[in-house]
Amino acid sequence: MNMISAETENKAPILITNDDGIQALGILTVARLMSHLRRVIVVAPDSARSGAGCSITSTRPVEFAAWKGKASPEADELLPEAGPYPIDYFTCSGTPVDCIKIADEYVLNGAPALLVSGINHGDNASCSLHYSGTMGAVIEGTLKGWPSVGFSLRTTNHLANFKPHHDAILRIARFVLDNGMKQGEALNVNFPEVDELKGIKATRMARGKWEQEWADAHNPHGKRAYWLTGCFTNLEPEADDTDYWALDHGYCSVTPFQLDLTAHETLKKLTHSGLIS
Amino acid sequence: MNMISAETENKAPILITNDDGIQALGILTVARLMSHLRRVIVVAPDSARSGAGCSITSTRPVEFAAWKGKASPEADELLPEAGPYPIDYFTCSGTPVDCIKIADEYVLNGAPALLVSGINHGDNASCSLHYSGTMGAVIEGTLKGWPSVGFSLRTTNHLANFKPHHDAILRIARFVLDNGMKQGEALNVNFPEVDELKGIKATRMARGKWEQEWADAHNPHGKRAYWLTGCFTNLEPEADDTDYWALDHGYCSVTPFQLDLTAHETLKKLTHSGLIS
Repeated sequence: MNMISAETENKAPILITNDDGIQALGILTVARLMSHLRRVIVVAPDSARSGAGCSITSTRPVEFAAWKGKASPEADELLPEAGPYPIDYFTCSGTPVDCIKIADEYVLNGAPALLVSGINHGDNASCSLHYSGTMGAVIEGTLKGWPSVGFSLRTTNHLANFKPHHDAILRIARFVLDNGMKQGEALNVNFPEVDELKGIKATRMARGKWEQEWADAHNPHGKRAYWLTGCFTNLEPEADDTDYWALDHGYCSVTPFQLDLTAHETLKKLTHSGLIS
Repeated sequence: MNMISAETENKAPILITNDDGIQALGILTVARLMSHLRRVIVVAPDSARSGAGCSITSTRPVEFAAWKGKASPEADELLPEAGPYPIDYFTCSGTPVDCIKIADEYVLNGAPALLVSGINHGDNASCSLHYSGTMGAVIEGTLKGWPSVGFSLRTTNHLANFKPHHDAILRIARFVLDNGMKQGEALNVNFPEVDELKGIKATRMARGKWEQEWADAHNPHGKRAYWLTGCFTNLEPEADDTDYWALDHGYCSVTPFQLDLTAHETLKKLTHSGLIS
């Protein structure tokens, strides 16, 4: 029983999810933008799942349901015009990866033309890719063989201004629709919080790390309890070919990345080491 | 305020975590095995976190506390002898990645000599690496610059027989202690469920995918609710150099993998495409 059955047009739809939850301005913005290109199906978490990575829900059933697609009044003012294609919204009680798996099994009829995750409120450059639920969904879409792109904006503002990036988002989505992606690869797209982009740069993941990661939660019952927080450090700030450099200098960063993590040079060495028998 | 202060010996300890929770036979087994090599500090989730990936806890404070290190009577019978070095146990209310971050900030004094995650009950070969909380902890340790190894056994048995693999686990741990790991790389070690290993193979990640992923949870209140489950398919079953092939043929699989996901060939092509401005 698939929930989208009679196609109003024959083209495969664009599937959209995120990790900030279905009411976030970022996902409502990108849904309307994508409705200028294709029919849109949104399957997103019912509330925030920031930092969900590729996590899945295995200890309880996952629920999903149709959603009205109603933004808060303050978010509504900031949304772009919707395009000519319809948008259907569903919420899911699971993680972003669960949303993709639910969409694949119960909502879609066949592969989408494109999976878009985001627009995340907060960048997912450098090692943040590993922690990101937005990017976890992109990894899941890629594992399913779908062209998949994650969009993120370097901001902590839940009413962030996405307008300066509407054109670039549509341009990148059209580029992937037209050219596809190599099997096992996807795009991690990050925007700086600027009024005008300097341009779009193809970049690699910067080496970076999070530090000063905990803040005392002052548990009144005497338990040791801490909030996860942290400061990011770019470990190669001089390199001008990284995602972080692009963001720091006002460019949109487009990083192609792959799901095969094998370290092939080390594999060769290991094969001839004393460990192997 | 670090909780392990006066060293009984000068060597850096081995840090251990998992995603099955601190009472799992796998982690209690590997803690005892590692206590033959170094002082051991265990910081593990207070209950199962299977499928946690690299997820982090950002919506509530994370708690942690000392733990007595007491196995259930049925698990206790299956544990190996402890070595001469002490083992200290702590539980954490967060994810495996949170455990590493808590250990780094509040338990350890400086870097551990080695991070061991596991032994997971269930293999983490092929794309399962992306979903695995066991391997999420390994990625986190690697981001912190520590030599990091994940151990997993292809089994669903919570009282699994780890004995045939004790020697190989110690051998691989010694190898990493002696040789270190290249920065930004780690090992994903998977064991088949056999009474006798055929040997140890250096392997690459197989291309694979999960299918038939949902089972109806028969929600009595009429909601659509589903259990995540699934069947794994190895998409290159003939290739004899993959982690999956090694497991299928009775070998221990050692896969070196890297945290830089950049797809460098595609990056070159993208740089000269019409998308870049």
